[in-house]
Amino acid sequence: MAVVVQKYGGSSVGTTEKIKGIAESIVKRKNENTDLVIVVSAMGKTTDDLIALSKGITQQPDKRELDAILSTGEIISSALLAMAIKALGCDAISYTAHQIGIQTSGQYGKALIKDIQDKKIKKSLKEGKIVIVAGFQGINEDGDITTLGRGGSDTTAVALAVKLCGSCEIYTDVAGIYSVDPRAYGEAKKLDEIEYEEMLELASLGAQIMHSRSIELAQKYGIPIYVGLSNSDIKGTVIREVKNMDMESKPVTGIATSDEDVAVTLQRIPKDVNILATIFEAIGSKRINIDMISQTSPIDGTVNVSFTIPKESLKDSLEIIDNVVVDNKVIVDADITKFSLVGLGMKTTSGVAARVFRVFSKNSIEIKMITTSEIRITCAIKTEDKLKAIQVIAKEFNM
Amino acid sequence: MAVVVQKYGGSSVGTTEKIKGIAESIVKRKNENTDLVIVVSAMGKTTDDLIALSKGITQQPDKRELDAILSTGEIISSALLAMAIKALGCDAISYTAHQIGIQTSGQYGKALIKDIQDKKIKKSLKEGKIVIVAGFQGINEDGDITTLGRGGSDTTAVALAVKLCGSCEIYTDVAGIYSVDPRAYGEAKKLDEIEYEEMLELASLGAQIMHSRSIELAQKYGIPIYVGLSNSDIKGTVIREVKNMDMESKPVTGIATSDEDVAVTLQRIPKDVNILATIFEAIGSKRINIDMISQTSPIDGTVNVSFTIPKESLKDSLEIIDNVVVDNKVIVDADITKFSLVGLGMKTTSGVAARVFRVFSKNSIEIKMITTSEIRITCAIKTEDKLKAIQVIAKEFNM
Repeated sequence: MAVVVQKYGGSSVGTTEKIKGIAESIVKRKNENTDLVIVVSAMGKTTDDLIALSKGITQQPDKRELDAILSTGEIISSALLAMAIKALGCDAISYTAHQIGIQTSGQYGKALIKDIQDKKIKKSLKEGKIVIVAGFQGINEDGDITTLGRGGSDTTAVALAVKLCGSCEIYTDVAGIYSVDPRAYGEAKKLDEIEYEEMLELASLGAQIMHSRSIELAQKYGIPIYVGLSNSDIKGTVIREVKNMDMESKPVTGIATSDEDVAVTLQRIPKDVNILATIFEAIGSKRINIDMISQTSPIDGTVNVSFTIPKESLKDSLEIIDNVVVDNKVIVDADITKFSLVGLGMKTTSGVAARVFRVFSKNSIEIKMITTSEIRITCAIKTEDKLKAIQVIAKEFNM
Repeated sequence: MAVVVQKYGGSSVGTTEKIKGIAESIVKRKNENTDLVIVVSAMGKTTDDLIALSKGITQQPDKRELDAILSTGEIISSALLAMAIKALGCDAISYTAHQIGIQTSGQYGKALIKDIQDKKIKKSLKEGKIVIVAGFQGINEDGDITTLGRGGSDTTAVALAVKLCGSCEIYTDVAGIYSVDPRAYGEAKKLDEIEYEEMLELASLGAQIMHSRSIELAQKYGIPIYVGLSNSDIKGTVIREVKNMDMESKPVTGIATSDEDVAVTLQRIPKDVNILATIFEAIGSKRINIDMISQTSPIDGTVNVSFTIPKESLKDSLEIIDNVVVDNKVIVDADITKFSLVGLGMKTTSGVAARVFRVFSKNSIEIKMITTSEIRITCAIKTEDKLKAIQVIAKEFNM
């Protein structure tokens, strides 16, 4: 029998009433003769509450201990869901990462799944049980509890689908993947399907629907992911390899924006790539993500270099810069929004960037920085221009 | 180095502030060159809240799943305490039952500790760490999470003390063991020491300071238990084998009362011990605790039999009785308090029962049922007489 792995996010299991509702639709699905493995996130804001509790002890909670605390949210929601299913007369069993051996490596708080022991799951499925797995958590080489980072339950679900040769369905509180955030652009269209690469770009650019690593994993093993509403007949979006895409007609698949970064500009630093290497190495060693980097052409042997970093890392980054670059003017611009267009069609459609610039210019939207990849154009613009930019670009590309 | 196992109850770790306070006294103790293993209960009312959450799913939550949920309370409190200790610059590590292998057998919700793998604990102690263990939980033969029943963290602590050949200290929100509940009798005296047997009787009779099983375990292995206030210089009580007790002068060590039972009387049932056996077997098979049993002398070939059962088991018990005893009058008396006097001295002091009855009679306290053991006298009295009974008996025996 085909195994279907379903994942329900925090808002889908936010209350006991919602859990009971999901239990009903799971039992209905099971009765259609499907083997089900369900991955759940913690209820609603549980993870935030647990972080706040830990900060009540110390502002810098020990990471091993924090992971142990955070893992409890999913233990509770998975057991509640198993209870709810059993109360409907259908057999179910919940498992923690420890119990089924979700082995991880890497750092606390952002561990990577190495492997999953599927023996217990397969045995329970064979016994006719619906298996509920606590998402977001694993056990490392030392037997310590680890968590996979925000949205990590998506990765748990995809990893289980890979391991069990099953399909993967992610249920959330949005009806699927939209070309543009519907809250910003009322006429936004829901996509029937989207390619892994496009979804990856959108996810990493701030469309916070899916954990990037879950998409990478699905792409690697060719597992299609269905994303849609729980308890609904509205059709969602399938993330998959798209072979016969009509590229000409659709150069841009989606828009993503992010207000989480600041732009830092180093003025008139010596035209010496070693200095930049030193700065970026030092910042990178603190695990601070540098994103857009641009450099002007040298004048009088000096250059201006701009880059963006997450707002919360600004203080650390400035300290590092001060240690390396002496006597130079550092300008911080906190008023930026990263505005990105993503589309596989850009590979073959030329002139997309030109159309973007023309539309921005016509609408007096200032572009502060630009970076591009093969399937993406990202502009840093003023945050106040964000909504206007979404609307004029969505209209221009008929999204 | 001697290992000291300390246990902190739910009210001692009720807030992050309290946890930080306890962390300070633990670090102070560690600096006196002591290897410390700390067992914690869940914060404050966490366990009750988790039960209520589960009842939001179903009134009869699946017991395996409920145990998984309840275990999270202690995972959180133990990790918070480890964080707090580390924040003070002292090394600490928290362990779940899974991580250190607290193996249990028996039922969910009241599992028994079979063994504890002490390898990880000893290694961590050797590395200079303070070890924090999540109390109240274990893992059974199937790898399922189990809990040990209300107050089970006491048993976790004593079991660890046995395993590590250490001593055991139970910190709580009372200053020690009192002869009488100080809330009922202002002049109640705190005991410097109390014998295991006496403490066992008091614990099983409703003095809810310690988990009965923890005392049995301590008695079996001869581990003295210190019970006292956390963060205080006030001297508590030691539960131990007392060899040189002055028995004559102190026939009664303590009073315990319980309002949790109802009395059931079966009127004029045939004088046939098989009927009673059938009833009590059927009730026992539902794991309902029958306590006081008394039977009148037979008249006309019939007898009256009274016994007490927990209030919450009344409905189940009456159904069982109806199936066995037809056409007999069953009388339920919900207005009873079990009033017990406990003292090793009763073994050698005669006339204690007579003194109790005389004092009750003088004060118009009606006795509904009586049972006795070698070191205990229990009377069922009206609940409204409870406070008066405590006061007159405490005065009579100078407690």
